[in-house]
Amino acid sequence: MSQKVYNFNAGPAILPKEVLLKAQKELLDYHGIGMSVMEISHRTKEYEEINDSATALFRELMGLDDSYKLLFLGGGGSTQFAMLPMNLLPKDRTATYVETGTWAEKAIKEAKRFGTVHIAASSKDKNHSYIPKLNGSDVPADSVYLHITSNNTIFGTQWHEFPKVAVPLVCDMSSDILSRRLNFKDFSLIYGGAQKNIGPAGVTIVIIKDDLLAMCSDAIPTIFNYKTHAAENSLYNTPPVFPIYIVKLVLEWMKEKGGLAVIEEQNRAKQEVIYDTIGQNSDYYFGHAQKDSRSWMNITFRLPTAVLEEKFAKDSKAAGFIGLKGHRSVGGIRASLYNAMPLEGAEKLAEFMQKFRRTN
Amino acid sequence: MSQKVYNFNAGPAILPKEVLLKAQKELLDYHGIGMSVMEISHRTKEYEEINDSATALFRELMGLDDSYKLLFLGGGGSTQFAMLPMNLLPKDRTATYVETGTWAEKAIKEAKRFGTVHIAASSKDKNHSYIPKLNGSDVPADSVYLHITSNNTIFGTQWHEFPKVAVPLVCDMSSDILSRRLNFKDFSLIYGGAQKNIGPAGVTIVIIKDDLLAMCSDAIPTIFNYKTHAAENSLYNTPPVFPIYIVKLVLEWMKEKGGLAVIEEQNRAKQEVIYDTIGQNSDYYFGHAQKDSRSWMNITFRLPTAVLEEKFAKDSKAAGFIGLKGHRSVGGIRASLYNAMPLEGAEKLAEFMQKFRRTN
Repeated sequence: MSQKVYNFNAGPAILPKEVLLKAQKELLDYHGIGMSVMEISHRTKEYEEINDSATALFRELMGLDDSYKLLFLGGGGSTQFAMLPMNLLPKDRTATYVETGTWAEKAIKEAKRFGTVHIAASSKDKNHSYIPKLNGSDVPADSVYLHITSNNTIFGTQWHEFPKVAVPLVCDMSSDILSRRLNFKDFSLIYGGAQKNIGPAGVTIVIIKDDLLAMCSDAIPTIFNYKTHAAENSLYNTPPVFPIYIVKLVLEWMKEKGGLAVIEEQNRAKQEVIYDTIGQNSDYYFGHAQKDSRSWMNITFRLPTAVLEEKFAKDSKAAGFIGLKGHRSVGGIRASLYNAMPLEGAEKLAEFMQKFRRTN
Repeated sequence: MSQKVYNFNAGPAILPKEVLLKAQKELLDYHGIGMSVMEISHRTKEYEEINDSATALFRELMGLDDSYKLLFLGGGGSTQFAMLPMNLLPKDRTATYVETGTWAEKAIKEAKRFGTVHIAASSKDKNHSYIPKLNGSDVPADSVYLHITSNNTIFGTQWHEFPKVAVPLVCDMSSDILSRRLNFKDFSLIYGGAQKNIGPAGVTIVIIKDDLLAMCSDAIPTIFNYKTHAAENSLYNTPPVFPIYIVKLVLEWMKEKGGLAVIEEQNRAKQEVIYDTIGQNSDYYFGHAQKDSRSWMNITFRLPTAVLEEKFAKDSKAAGFIGLKGHRSVGGIRASLYNAMPLEGAEKLAEFMQKFRRTN
């Protein structure tokens, strides 16, 4: 029998227990068909139902109509760093990016292979500890799009107010997708790997508005063209069936809980518990992110010494708190509080932080 | 309680029952860590072990040393139709392809976007019912590679003797990978989606020899460069963890059964049962593939009339034989006999074929 653990992994990450139990129960016999969901053709009515339900649940949770196409793609979020400019950034045009961390930097690097990249703002001067303010004039009017990263997993910062711009807004939401209510209609393209808030690794979601879809290039490989997948309802080629099935179960779980309003309130409560603990012990725990840029998903903080940080990582792990060692770009500790983490997990971690401080 | 079914799906396809049972058992608690394999970071020692074991098992089953790199990629086999020429076919060079069916045609279409494509042979003249003979002189000596499709899922043909050529041999083995013993060292690059013989949909295997790897372009997006994934041991980005975990379990199952020699004998026996039944009823069942090109994996055959074919598909389904309706490119019936299909399944289908003939 395993120890009870709290999974603070930055991704792949915790999934709802109810989802895992359901997947386990029907793993050998999906809906009484005598086969596993891993064994069915993607051309069956069973898979079609999974695909259609997941699509409809996305639209419902986000409040989007069918002027947005939902694509389920393999290849991971990093593939989108290349697919996006391959589809939308011609050689003689400019795309504008905001540089807020490692993933934004990678997205910028790939975009530069296709066209001109304008960096409208960067937080590199302070080790990406804040979300820069963006003025409309920072974004050239002839940009094919403005690309931002809504949550920076490594540095623990998050956009809380999105830029109002005249050009199409493109957002990498890999690490905070469906974690809060947003005016999703303000975005022309949203993408994200599933493995943080909405499923296991192996499937990436792309949500693209029809008018931007129409601008995609046709002079690119079929499999990398967003239009291919939109026209075929994500069934152009064999999709990653099992990961998409789990995404569908997670979306159902979210809907049953009450949708994004309820999820958002729980996420608000969870991060408050940890940031409050940091605030109450501000001579011992030092948050990396500036207050107005704090991420609700990934909380990054330091301790007085590297030795204490190492001990915190080790002792917390022994106590059943998994994945708290921070990324080397920041050091210290990182606690990831994705949708599936219960409030109890944050409270237990806060208790541990208090106790660790008293005894170390 | 579900009816006992035999899963003849062309892919995604049947998986070994033992693998599904093991996956089910440890779905919520992988090796006593208190988390699902879907919830662990790809940077943990648990996932590293999965990745390394799967790689080692591949090498062992195929008899390849570490001069071949094994890559686990997302995106599906169709992604390789574009990735391959993107890496290896410069604009001013020629790659040679053999056109043996739908998938070969798609591979050719994508390669043409990158450089010149020479078609060395085609079976299009007879609706891809045979594997063309290839002479060394059919392949220009300055080809960057020769591309073949070892098994043609849709038409039910398979290469039983591979061309001996001086240029690097590249093979799409999506639908017969690890189904028989081959001189794998004769190939410079082998790729395949997992969803037929070795796992669920969502992961693609690329096996590439070091000397070909060294020839890959550096002027392409990072995520599409084979070198990126080879250098990082398939951990450049988050891999499709769960599909790769299932692949590892399937490879373990294959090894326990006795490796490729035993798998091959079982596959030989299974196809014999069906082709013998076709042969004994040659005025009623008509094989699509020419005898020397018959696939062991996908057996395609027609009946005297379209009405009978429809009835066969319907009655067989009602009797628990799933996925037998043929692809529209051939019509009739297609029985897929991948590794995980037991001999009993082929025998039961042969019985059904005899009975259907008697009563219809």
